[in-house]
Amino acid sequence: MTTPDNPMEIAFALAEEAAAAGEVPVGAVVVRQGRVIGRGRNTMRETRDPTAHAEFNAIRAALEADGTGRLGDCDLYVTLEPCTMCAGAIAHARLRRVYYAAEDPKGGAVDNGVRFFAQPTCHHAPEVIGGVQATRAAELLRRFFAARR
Amino acid sequence: MTTPDNPMEIAFALAEEAAAAGEVPVGAVVVRQGRVIGRGRNTMRETRDPTAHAEFNAIRAALEADGTGRLGDCDLYVTLEPCTMCAGAIAHARLRRVYYAAEDPKGGAVDNGVRFFAQPTCHHAPEVIGGVQATRAAELLRRFFAARR
Repeated sequence: MTTPDNPMEIAFALAEEAAAAGEVPVGAVVVRQGRVIGRGRNTMRETRDPTAHAEFNAIRAALEADGTGRLGDCDLYVTLEPCTMCAGAIAHARLRRVYYAAEDPKGGAVDNGVRFFAQPTCHHAPEVIGGVQATRAAELLRRFFAARR
Repeated sequence: MTTPDNPMEIAFALAEEAAAAGEVPVGAVVVRQGRVIGRGRNTMRETRDPTAHAEFNAIRAALEADGTGRLGDCDLYVTLEPCTMCAGAIAHARLRRVYYAAEDPKGGAVDNGVRFFAQPTCHHAPEVIGGVQATRAAELLRRFFAARR
């Protein structure tokens, strides 16, 4: 499959799909040389699995599609700053670059929280580009939670 | 299934099984009220999935067996200190207690590294009992890596 110009658009579409399914709206894609090789959205409620985060699902989908166990030439696009678990997974999968939209001061672990990629015990730190369409992603989350209050 | 007296024994058996399969020897079990509800060992090589850690596999197996998405009344036994990714997964699954054997100064994230459970951004911190049969677990790992040099 070929990606449109901006893989973050696909991540947003996945986040919208999550919201429609009653999941916290977060979406993610793994891209290699302009091609999406893995996509994921939050599925924690549906699968009753609190580890089923969008980026984790996308990384596992990419690993499965790829088959080599190595994603060192791949980039991750995700609509929310990854959490501690997902930052760990990103390092294990050795992703080259991480683009994220909204910061997550409460649960994030890239530019907030444990700032994992900046720690000496982090064995692989991707390049990070944060704040890509941050307002759009934050608004999506805000609307989702407002509707549930 | 009923557990023997010490769930850590099952975790060690799983670690030995990992070694026999050419995997870094780490094993883990999730226990509820004396019953093992999930077991896991490293399968990173076999599945070509760098996120397939013993405790992650055990947690997902327990979540699948349980079906409620909640492991708040469960304990994890693992032969090596959990990494950043797995510490995050432990917090997400809200495990009550973590027993681990060998410390991992390089990759650990409980009493080393980011010490995730002690951070203000950690939304759920289990009780931690480290160093259970630490020498045995360290020796198992040492032998495994020595044989591969």
